[in-house]
Amino acid sequence: MSSYFRPNIATLAGYVPGEQLQDPRIIKLNTNENPYPPSPKVYAALRKAVNASLRLYPDPLGDSLRTIAARVFGVKPSNIIGGNGSDELLSMLLRCFVGPEDRVAFPVPTYSLYDTLVEIQEGVAARVDFPPDFSLPESLAEQKAALTFLCNPNAPSGTLVPLVEIEKLARALSGILVVDEAYIDFADSEGASSIPLIQRLPNLIVLRTFSKSFSLAGMRIGLAFASEEIIAGMMKVKDSYNLDRLSLVAATTALQDLPWMNRNARRIRQSRKRLSNALRRLGFQVYPSHANFVLARKSGENLKPVYEALKRRMILVRYFDAPRLQDCLRITVGAPQEVQALINELTAIGTLLASDAAAAP
Amino acid sequence: MSSYFRPNIATLAGYVPGEQLQDPRIIKLNTNENPYPPSPKVYAALRKAVNASLRLYPDPLGDSLRTIAARVFGVKPSNIIGGNGSDELLSMLLRCFVGPEDRVAFPVPTYSLYDTLVEIQEGVAARVDFPPDFSLPESLAEQKAALTFLCNPNAPSGTLVPLVEIEKLARALSGILVVDEAYIDFADSEGASSIPLIQRLPNLIVLRTFSKSFSLAGMRIGLAFASEEIIAGMMKVKDSYNLDRLSLVAATTALQDLPWMNRNARRIRQSRKRLSNALRRLGFQVYPSHANFVLARKSGENLKPVYEALKRRMILVRYFDAPRLQDCLRITVGAPQEVQALINELTAIGTLLASDAAAAP
Repeated sequence: MSSYFRPNIATLAGYVPGEQLQDPRIIKLNTNENPYPPSPKVYAALRKAVNASLRLYPDPLGDSLRTIAARVFGVKPSNIIGGNGSDELLSMLLRCFVGPEDRVAFPVPTYSLYDTLVEIQEGVAARVDFPPDFSLPESLAEQKAALTFLCNPNAPSGTLVPLVEIEKLARALSGILVVDEAYIDFADSEGASSIPLIQRLPNLIVLRTFSKSFSLAGMRIGLAFASEEIIAGMMKVKDSYNLDRLSLVAATTALQDLPWMNRNARRIRQSRKRLSNALRRLGFQVYPSHANFVLARKSGENLKPVYEALKRRMILVRYFDAPRLQDCLRITVGAPQEVQALINELTAIGTLLASDAAAAP
Repeated sequence: MSSYFRPNIATLAGYVPGEQLQDPRIIKLNTNENPYPPSPKVYAALRKAVNASLRLYPDPLGDSLRTIAARVFGVKPSNIIGGNGSDELLSMLLRCFVGPEDRVAFPVPTYSLYDTLVEIQEGVAARVDFPPDFSLPESLAEQKAALTFLCNPNAPSGTLVPLVEIEKLARALSGILVVDEAYIDFADSEGASSIPLIQRLPNLIVLRTFSKSFSLAGMRIGLAFASEEIIAGMMKVKDSYNLDRLSLVAATTALQDLPWMNRNARRIRQSRKRLSNALRRLGFQVYPSHANFVLARKSGENLKPVYEALKRRMILVRYFDAPRLQDCLRITVGAPQEVQALINELTAIGTLLASDAAAAP
C-alpha cells in the first residue's frame, strides 16, 4: 500500500460485497435481490427518459422524488434526502456526525459495512452483542455514541425490533439513531416502520432503499427520512448531483406503482414461510425473518463446506466467516423454483455429508 | 442547525451548484453542459439495458467500463476506478489522503467544490493565487500539502497548464497531485492530457468525466487514473456499487463512439472561437480557453447587473460573487444559435447600460 494514504485507510481491509458472478445459470441467493423484476411502468418511464436531456445535469435536490416520496410516506419533502443507494447515505451520515475518535454504536452481528465506514472516518466502533434471540441489547443506549445504527429488520438475522423499543432507544440516546429499514417492506407486521417517529424524535434518521422490495438494486437509490434540520445539514455534505436522471425516473415511477411492489413482497413472504419450514425439516434452526432472506443455523457446525457444496451445484448463498455466524448460512428468498432447487440440493448435500461422516476413518 | 452535527459541518456553507432552472425556453449557458446530445448508440444501448437485470446489483468494480477505458486511454484496467461523477471521486480522494488538519493546496480561482470538500474533511485549504495570466503559480509546490488539486483546463478561466510543468510539479510534491481534466477534450492542443504520466509518477491522479465532452452530465460518471497501488486503495473507500447499471452502459457505449464525441468537441471549439471574438469586439477581455466555456472580463466592473439582465432575457450564464471574479462572466459555449442569441442580448444590454450611465445624474 502506497504511503500516500492516511494510516487508517492504508490498514483498512475494505468491505467485501457478496459475490456477483456473471454466469446466468447460477441461482443467486446471496445478496438479497428481489427475484421479481421492477414494475413495467418503470421500464416504460426509463425508455422514455433516454433522450437528449441526458446531456443536462439532474436536479441537484431530486425534488421530483422527494415530492412523491413525501406523499407515499406521509412526511414533507423537506424531511427527505435521496442517495446513490443507502450506502451513500450511510457514508454521508458518518461524515455529518462522526469525527475522529467519536463513537459509533451498533448491535452485532449486523451489516458489516458499518464497521468499514467507521474505520474510514477514524471513529471508534462500539459493538454490542445481540442476545441469542436478536432482541435489542439494553446496553446499546449506554455507549455514549455520536451515532447509533440499528438495522431493522436486522441483516443477517432477519429479526425485527418493535417500534416501542426503538422510540425508547432514541429517547435514551444523546446522539443520532439511524434505523436502516432496507428490508422493512418484507416485515410480517404492519406498521413496523419508524418513519412516523421522525415527527417527534429529533435525533432519528430512517433509511430506505429501492434495491430490495422495489427490485431496483441495479439503479442505486436510497432515501433518508429525518427532521428538516437534519436533512438540511445532510444536503450540505451530499455530492451536488448524486442521483442521476434515470435513477430519479426509476424511483419516482416505482413509488407510483406500489401495488406491484406489495404483490412481490407478499409472494416473497409466502416463499419465506415455505423455505423456513423446509430448512427446519432439514435440521436447521431458522430465525423468524421479516426480511427477504433467512438465517439458517446448525449450532456449532461450521457451514462453510455446505456453502461450498452449494456453490459447486450452482447455488450461491452467503456464508460469513465472522464471529457467531460460522454455523450459519444467509439465504435470500428467491422465486419458488429457486427455493425448491435450494432445498433439493441441501437435501442431497446433507445425505452426502452424512455418508462422508459415516465413512470417515 | 441541529447540535448533533460535527462543528465543521454545522458551520459549513455548502457548495452551491449552478442554477438548474426547469423552464425549457431558457438558454442555459451556466453549467458547462454540452449543447449536443449523447451518441445515438448510447440511447440504443440504454434502451436495451432497461430490463429485468435492473433488479440485480451492478458489477461492484465496473469492470466493463474499466476494460474499455483502459483500451481507449492506453493504460491497464487496474489503473482505473469509476465514480458517480468526478464529484464522488473528489470526495473519495479527500477521505483517502486528507485527515484533520492536513493541508490541501490548489491555485485559485478554481472549482469551488474543492473548498467545500476540504471543510467537510476538516482539512486546511492552502489557496495559492493564480497570476493574472492563470499560469501555474510556482509556490503551489511549496505548500506541504497531502493533496494538491490542479483543474486543467482550469475552471472558470479555461486556461491550460502544459504537461511539462505538471510533471515538474508532481515531482516537487511530497503528497498527491490530482489533475482534474473535466474539460481536456476541448483543449486546442493535442496531447494535453496527463494520463500518460501516471506510468512514471506514483503520486499523480488524473480525473475525467463523461459530463462534458460525452454529453452525459445527467448520468453521473467519472473516472480516475493512477498507479495500481493508488487505485487499489481508493477501491477500499468506494461505495460497493457506486455506478448503477445504466450509467455503466452509457459510459462503456460512449467510449465506443469516440468519433461522435470528437465531432461535437470540434464544433464546440469552433463556436468558442466565434464567441471569444464576438466578446472581444464587445469590449470584454477573454482568456484563451481550452474548455467548453469562456471567462469574459470587464476589468474592475462588477458584472452582476449584466448577469441579471441576461437572466431576465432568458439567458443563464454564471456569475461568481467571489474574489477576482466579480468583473467576470463564465459563459458555456452553446450551440451556434445559442451563442448568437447571447451576443445579440449582450449587445442590446451594453447599449442599455451605456445609455443608463449617460442618463445618470
